[in-house]
Amino acid sequence: MTSHLPDPDRRNERSRRAILAATVALISELGYDRASIEAIAKRAGVGKQTIYRWWPSKGAVALEALSESLATVVDFRDSGDLIADLRRHMRDVTQLLGSTEIGPVIQGLIAAAQSDPALSRAHLELVIKPADEFWHDRIARAQESGEIRADADADAIIDMLFGAMYFRLLVHTRPSKPEQIDAALDIAFNGLR
Amino acid sequence: MTSHLPDPDRRNERSRRAILAATVALISELGYDRASIEAIAKRAGVGKQTIYRWWPSKGAVALEALSESLATVVDFRDSGDLIADLRRHMRDVTQLLGSTEIGPVIQGLIAAAQSDPALSRAHLELVIKPADEFWHDRIARAQESGEIRADADADAIIDMLFGAMYFRLLVHTRPSKPEQIDAALDIAFNGLR
Repeated sequence: MTSHLPDPDRRNERSRRAILAATVALISELGYDRASIEAIAKRAGVGKQTIYRWWPSKGAVALEALSESLATVVDFRDSGDLIADLRRHMRDVTQLLGSTEIGPVIQGLIAAAQSDPALSRAHLELVIKPADEFWHDRIARAQESGEIRADADADAIIDMLFGAMYFRLLVHTRPSKPEQIDAALDIAFNGLR
Repeated sequence: MTSHLPDPDRRNERSRRAILAATVALISELGYDRASIEAIAKRAGVGKQTIYRWWPSKGAVALEALSESLATVVDFRDSGDLIADLRRHMRDVTQLLGSTEIGPVIQGLIAAAQSDPALSRAHLELVIKPADEFWHDRIARAQESGEIRADADADAIIDMLFGAMYFRLLVHTRPSKPEQIDAALDIAFNGLR
């Protein structure tokens, strides 16, 4: 049965996308703390209540926006060459963390998560864990095929390569640059000795 | 010339120490956000105005408390054995990040610094840079003496080893454990291949 009335699910999807886009834009322009639900609603052309009906907090909206951006950018692939797969993924992550749009969303979310355990768990589940699980499997396959040492610790590999990038974003020791990816992979694969 | 009147500098030093101790204790008990300047003043037995006279913000008080804790714990030493020096320093940092007293201060400070550029710069200068500079020099000496490869990138080594620990604290992929230090040093020194 067709209808000429607007489909409420499609209308909702349009509002949802407008809210997520407004959230990213306002956090990028004003910073996470100053991008209020009120301003997001105004920019998206919806009522504040629409946002509160769908999400429990600004953190939850920002997390959904981040999660959707990740889905379009990050490409988990097994090409059979671990170092090439890591390099490609690390470039994607460096680009996201360094982007003036998504970088401030990630900084704001991790900051907010330090005093919001539910947001911290949701960020871990939606953003960090999918990558963590992919790399665990990918590293295990590289160990089975003999591409890398079977006794190297996968947790350590993942946290060293990706932790360095988050550390730079959050603590500002130095900006993340594409050359650092090769420097990090050189140490991880060839060792300092 | 001696005097039997109380020394105002000594009295200030006693209040300063009481304020720093109260700041660490309250952040540990309540979390960074809920530890107010008012509660810190009350616990330390001083007036709110005393705190505002000496520090511009709660972040500044917390940063001074962290910086003094670091000074008593972290031991920069050159034993001539780079891996042993790194292992000792990484154990100290793991213990600090994982402590129920100082861990929440570091989490709260890094969170607050994401929306407070002055606090971010002060944290970088007081907490991160002294270690960063020590390890740059230490790694350069290990490269000159041939202990490690001369072409390995010092920035990458530092950010990989210490970034992984901060990543675990802030994103909670897994708790930091002493065994991870050996796993990370094994990869960094011996390589995955």
